[in-house]
Amino acid sequence: MKASQFLISTLKEAPADAEIVSHKLMMRAGLIKRLGAGIYNYMPMGLRVIRKVEAIIREEMGRAGSIEMLMPVVQPAELWQETGRFDKMGPELLRVKDRHGRDFIIQPTSEEVITDVARQELRSYKQLPKNLYHIQTKFRDERRPRFGLMRGREFTMKDAYSFDRDVESAGKSYDAMFGAYCKIFDRLGLEYRAVAADTGAIGGDRSHEFQVIAETGEDAIVYCPTSSYAANIELAEALAPSAPRGAASQALTLTPTPGKSTCADVADLLGLPLTQTVKSLVLATDTLDDKGVVTGTQIWLLLVRGDHELNEVKAGKVKGLKGGFRFATAGEIDGAFGCKPGYLGPIGIKGVKIVADRTVAAMSDFVCGANQLDHHYTGANWGRDLPEPDLVADIRNVVAGEPSPDGQGVLAIQRGIEVGHVFYLGKKYSEAMNATFLAEDGKPRHFEMGCYGIGVTRLLGAAIEQGHDERGIIWPVSMAPFEVVICPIGMDRSELVREQALKLYEELKAAGVDVLLDDRGERPGAMFADWELVGVPLRVVLGDRGLKEGLAEVQGRRDAQASNVALAELLAQVQARLKA
Amino acid sequence: MKASQFLISTLKEAPADAEIVSHKLMMRAGLIKRLGAGIYNYMPMGLRVIRKVEAIIREEMGRAGSIEMLMPVVQPAELWQETGRFDKMGPELLRVKDRHGRDFIIQPTSEEVITDVARQELRSYKQLPKNLYHIQTKFRDERRPRFGLMRGREFTMKDAYSFDRDVESAGKSYDAMFGAYCKIFDRLGLEYRAVAADTGAIGGDRSHEFQVIAETGEDAIVYCPTSSYAANIELAEALAPSAPRGAASQALTLTPTPGKSTCADVADLLGLPLTQTVKSLVLATDTLDDKGVVTGTQIWLLLVRGDHELNEVKAGKVKGLKGGFRFATAGEIDGAFGCKPGYLGPIGIKGVKIVADRTVAAMSDFVCGANQLDHHYTGANWGRDLPEPDLVADIRNVVAGEPSPDGQGVLAIQRGIEVGHVFYLGKKYSEAMNATFLAEDGKPRHFEMGCYGIGVTRLLGAAIEQGHDERGIIWPVSMAPFEVVICPIGMDRSELVREQALKLYEELKAAGVDVLLDDRGERPGAMFADWELVGVPLRVVLGDRGLKEGLAEVQGRRDAQASNVALAELLAQVQARLKA
Repeated sequence: MKASQFLISTLKEAPADAEIVSHKLMMRAGLIKRLGAGIYNYMPMGLRVIRKVEAIIREEMGRAGSIEMLMPVVQPAELWQETGRFDKMGPELLRVKDRHGRDFIIQPTSEEVITDVARQELRSYKQLPKNLYHIQTKFRDERRPRFGLMRGREFTMKDAYSFDRDVESAGKSYDAMFGAYCKIFDRLGLEYRAVAADTGAIGGDRSHEFQVIAETGEDAIVYCPTSSYAANIELAEALAPSAPRGAASQALTLTPTPGKSTCADVADLLGLPLTQTVKSLVLATDTLDDKGVVTGTQIWLLLVRGDHELNEVKAGKVKGLKGGFRFATAGEIDGAFGCKPGYLGPIGIKGVKIVADRTVAAMSDFVCGANQLDHHYTGANWGRDLPEPDLVADIRNVVAGEPSPDGQGVLAIQRGIEVGHVFYLGKKYSEAMNATFLAEDGKPRHFEMGCYGIGVTRLLGAAIEQGHDERGIIWPVSMAPFEVVICPIGMDRSELVREQALKLYEELKAAGVDVLLDDRGERPGAMFADWELVGVPLRVVLGDRGLKEGLAEVQGRRDAQASNVALAELLAQVQARLKA
Repeated sequence: MKASQFLISTLKEAPADAEIVSHKLMMRAGLIKRLGAGIYNYMPMGLRVIRKVEAIIREEMGRAGSIEMLMPVVQPAELWQETGRFDKMGPELLRVKDRHGRDFIIQPTSEEVITDVARQELRSYKQLPKNLYHIQTKFRDERRPRFGLMRGREFTMKDAYSFDRDVESAGKSYDAMFGAYCKIFDRLGLEYRAVAADTGAIGGDRSHEFQVIAETGEDAIVYCPTSSYAANIELAEALAPSAPRGAASQALTLTPTPGKSTCADVADLLGLPLTQTVKSLVLATDTLDDKGVVTGTQIWLLLVRGDHELNEVKAGKVKGLKGGFRFATAGEIDGAFGCKPGYLGPIGIKGVKIVADRTVAAMSDFVCGANQLDHHYTGANWGRDLPEPDLVADIRNVVAGEPSPDGQGVLAIQRGIEVGHVFYLGKKYSEAMNATFLAEDGKPRHFEMGCYGIGVTRLLGAAIEQGHDERGIIWPVSMAPFEVVICPIGMDRSELVREQALKLYEELKAAGVDVLLDDRGERPGAMFADWELVGVPLRVVLGDRGLKEGLAEVQGRRDAQASNVALAELLAQVQARLKA
């Protein structure tokens, strides 16, 4: 490609609404252009990256036996009503009526449509397993779209769906996709982790997120550097302390803590470590009658150590909270504790179910709220000052340095950006839509399903969050809009430069290198700044003086400086560096 | 690709709602699957065809200097309000509100968005000309979607838009696209014609439709077999008769024609040729005041010869009808003619403007309605029995055998399916959206624009309408989902067949041939029927007996029978036949 025949539009400044680095750089490099909130034009430069990502995905999906098709963007509501998602999904599902007043949705995913296809097309166990995917425009009407392609409304996703005859076969399909995803992210040249993830209401243990490592990531991912353990923070188990609970050594003491309503402030005031304090969180569960009217409410007190954080996903797995919980209202808290938040605690209350985190259950001489304004207890001890907790469970986020659940070392925590997800669905959709095949015994059986997503456009943002510096984007070679840019200096003045630039351009093209020749006639500084911003991995500078000595300058995007390369070796050098 | 790893689902019967052959065959061959009215899943077999079409389009668009980008499916209404299309377009424009109640549309085309991009990105004449395109999902909420992909609601279109500094340059951009389209349809292997088309309200003479020739086509296309003249029926000019009007030889006679309200019936009754009769069509134009209230109505009588058809597009170009016309109401007709339709005519009426087709203006002794129930006049003559017409114009469709407007022969008419359109837009959108660039004189100037569409998914239907027989689809090689299918007979019984089939499969793949190996283990008849239905251009049958003699059977999809080919020559033969 010659720059004069392409659309290059770099900006000095990012627009004000760009909060994170990838959004800023994508706008500045002219990869995307905002059309509306969370809706972007993929400009020619950005589309090249998308196409490269898609090509790698297609190849690896094909190798793993997945078959490409294309499902519509606009889908009839009927199918979504079969699974109940038409009603259950919130306003993020974009609903639309056609000219006849019939309901449709703009697809955010395609479980319903693919299950409908399967129940018509896959009739016999002989046709199984089958795995179908598409790469299609999706829409999710985010309440607050932001971060460019990271949390947009219209986006491109690859979603695959597997259909198997039984759980064992479904496991193999899952493994095949897991393997394909590893190959895809390896080939994209990204640093990532596959982490075990919570399976939510569906259950089972087959769910992995693929997280691109980046300090700016929204997700916390937990791993053990000395073993293969990796999980997202929702799932990573916090083990019970190995040491038993210590004996009580202090007396329970009502201590004034005026205005100190956080554990940190209380610890500070009392000169005690934060790890000696206990945090109180009040939840509520409602009992409903057949008509959905609330007939009773149970108040719950959840206790985690002062330096720990409640993990709501884990809390949702506690017996009695599984059916769904909410945070208690101010009135409910006052009714149960006779005190306002900030000074709540487990001592001297009635009718409240107490769930202690495993760590809290092993504490002695701890500090907790006294259920009196501006007061805490110190020296509190289980069994002496209050009954043992009703339930002990893992209800907190792990922290770095804790023992790994696999017993193979200690945990570390990184930030990540979720770009892929493999998920064993079981019969959730096949049962809801009565999608069956005829098994070997001649009887209909529901498909075992899995779903497998990759956020194609999100990957661009994630790659940039991982790879950038103060000058711009640093793409992996496989994702870069161009692999090499030729920057001729004074192409309009020097026939030698012009001739050599065109020659090199043709040579690289013929060798299959994705090369751009910058024939815009820009000054070197502006030219270099543009390509550093866009993030082209390799730059070849051709100047009159160098060429007369038979030399070109080659500089990788991460290199501190350029190196001189003899023209005779240039092609080989460029190819070698792209492969490195 | 091996059939066992692909999704093949052919049907014996087409669904009842499939009216035309391409729709039937696409459903039967498993290329598409209906999801809702006018909304289809593109199944793996169909998607392969789409991808091949897209790849050819991309290559030729790139060669012609057009740059690919991707504009969103969901577009903010604001831009569409700038051009007025949000209000002007009827219910075929799918409108949707997001969670905040803001208006959006699902794009049917992208003039507004691309013009918005251009007014931001293309600031100087130095950046011009530019041509940008995308291949994207479109939606048009057809009142009555039918014919499968021919008139669907969701479809894929390639739309390109050119931006130029002046009319001359815009003409070059237009020509480049015209040339690219010819290459695209040539490479797709379709029989087509580029025909001049009407430019509607925009004016100018730069509009061409690309029509795939098919007997079942919706459009009539007019061409001259002995010259390059080609136009669609709306545009093709009907010349005035070369012979002058004959002298009156009959007396005007009021003739009873009870119950004969059509020209054909009247001619029949009177034993006169249909070409002696004149057909009356009554239109009305309204005068509106500033508030859109009708302040006056003019009635028009349009006259075409009995065997001719009114051309409404041409009528719309007649002075006085340009602003828009409608067919007159029954009440208006009765008021102006004192008679009901079927017996209307130009004699003895007042206040009605008469427009005669050129042919009618040259007629003498003609038959026309007498404005009396059950009566016609015979022997009517201009100037004697009624005044000369107020206007004489070309207001009818041409018919085959007429002289070509270029004077180079006579016209022929074919049926066609419109699959592409190139259109010179001028400043229609750039002025509406105030999209300007800085010209060489430093002043802002509106872009000269062109738009260029290809109906990607529609092309599949058109190709099948053109290429099929009673056994199924006959694809051009470049569009076929697979170029070659290998059908091994008894692969499970004969190790020789198995080995040779796999060997040939690998050889063809290595030679870059898009080959499918049918390893499903189907019986020969079922296998052959499937691939004839799907329309694979070349079939290679490997059987135990033939292989022992070193022979395979090769049969082209259009061949009456197979020919034996020596295994040693098989690869070369297959490659040669695909290129032929």
